Amino acid sequence: MKSEPNPIGIMDKPPEPSPDEQARRSLTRIKNKIMVMSGKGGVGKSSVSVNLAINLAGKGFKVGLMDVDIHGPDIPRMLGLKGMLAANANKKLEPMWFSDNLSVVSIEALMPNKDDAIIWRGPVKHGAIRQFIGEVAWGDLDFLIIDSPPGTGDEPLTVAQLIKDARAVIVTTPQEIALADVRKSINFCKTVKMEIIGIVENMSGYICPHCGKSVDIFGSGGGERTAARAGLKLLGRIPFDPNLVKCGDNGLSFQQLYAEAPATRIYGEIAATICTTAKR
Amino acid sequence: MKSEPNPIGIMDKPPEPSPDEQARRSLTRIKNKIMVMSGKGGVGKSSVSVNLAINLAGKGFKVGLMDVDIHGPDIPRMLGLKGMLAANANKKLEPMWFSDNLSVVSIEALMPNKDDAIIWRGPVKHGAIRQFIGEVAWGDLDFLIIDSPPGTGDEPLTVAQLIKDARAVIVTTPQEIALADVRKSINFCKTVKMEIIGIVENMSGYICPHCGKSVDIFGSGGGERTAARAGLKLLGRIPFDPNLVKCGDNGLSFQQLYAEAPATRIYGEIAATICTTAKR
Repeated sequence: MKSEPNPIGIMDKPPEPSPDEQARRSLTRIKNKIMVMSGKGGVGKSSVSVNLAINLAGKGFKVGLMDVDIHGPDIPRMLGLKGMLAANANKKLEPMWFSDNLSVVSIEALMPNKDDAIIWRGPVKHGAIRQFIGEVAWGDLDFLIIDSPPGTGDEPLTVAQLIKDARAVIVTTPQEIALADVRKSINFCKTVKMEIIGIVENMSGYICPHCGKSVDIFGSGGGERTAARAGLKLLGRIPFDPNLVKCGDNGLSFQQLYAEAPATRIYGEIAATICTTAKR
Repeated sequence: MKSEPNPIGIMDKPPEPSPDEQARRSLTRIKNKIMVMSGKGGVGKSSVSVNLAINLAGKGFKVGLMDVDIHGPDIPRMLGLKGMLAANANKKLEPMWFSDNLSVVSIEALMPNKDDAIIWRGPVKHGAIRQFIGEVAWGDLDFLIIDSPPGTGDEPLTVAQLIKDARAVIVTTPQEIALADVRKSINFCKTVKMEIIGIVENMSGYICPHCGKSVDIFGSGGGERTAARAGLKLLGRIPFDPNLVKCGDNGLSFQQLYAEAPATRIYGEIAATICTTAKR
């Protein structure tokens, strides 16, 4: 029998029970699985994942954040988490903890040198993501937020195959090029039969720090139009706030530091909407 | 013998000579192969590919632009190219033409419905990219610009394996999160032994249209620092210009419409630097 790929390499032998069975068991303890997707990179998908996870955890839910962006894992840096994952006594990986309610797993936390490139082809990535689900001690969660790389390739496909009841939040910026790619994400979800909770329009206008006037850097309203056309809910329009970039670069919680900012209020509203659709 | 994957499907049988040999033959007629990479999505990599290709073609070189971003192929839209690729009498695919000197191939031009998602795993993508090289009637080219998806996954790996003398241009925005991913791209190139021509810093400052002052939306100077640390050349810093977004959305040539803009001048300088390193 050929052994399963084991890219994380915490075990020498194929685990018992099978990797698929381990993943299935992990998932039965997680009430809501939400994949944050985008058609295009650089629309702030990881920023949305982090801020939604922080907001839901702040509301008292147990939240896990799983970074399946194998080639560009930004989540630990955005949350200021350093160091490595370690295996516990049950040979499960212990996630990192951002707060009592928010646990985090990323390929970044398995790399001794954070600048190394992960040069893996699809099937190895599939195995790694399955291990992220089945071999991590997630425990009982209300929400698992899954930060997927942009596009409709191996990583989101693996999530769709392994997590049958995952639902999607699609992030976009307002310009037409981004919207063309968002329509691909919508069609991806239709093809793999994944329910779409709604669309988040990010970087939706910018306030000039010199003159205070609003500037539509990437145009405006495109997310709203796309949602309307596709019959989907627009969960919210998050304004561009340079402090979001700074907080992400420095591993700080924007919502805590800028509790009164419009973006913080809108994240609260988006999380509240998601809660109304969630299993309790 | 198992037949090769043939995702583009213009032929019923495995072609003769072999797909690898066809790709090799195509490549012998192309003097310079340049892959435009980024660690992170949304840094304007496709915009840089398009504008470099237009600039080099404007200098009189024969240029091909190959879009290997299978899941988010933006190039045809950014160049205003519609319609489908067709096979010629020699059973080669005819590229689309943006101008006499600039031919273009993208998966987008093989899709009857542009909003369909391409849900392919790695090995199929490998076959498609090989077909883009070997089964397209590129002819004799001075430059082949290859627009790669972000990250260090299947597509750039396939390019590195098939095009041994490809060199890289790495695009980044100035913020720290983007730079962390750029260092991965640099390490990817070292691992696969691909020469790096240099780094382009994109979205490097924004001029407020209301008050005319410069705003560092994504911070500034990070590309320069990363290049210096890695001992690489900074090819140029392209300012954020909303007209670049508008031209991209509408398939127009920014450099033609805004010949006097700072971004146009800088693209000219970057292309000139690339020419000094090129085979004639």
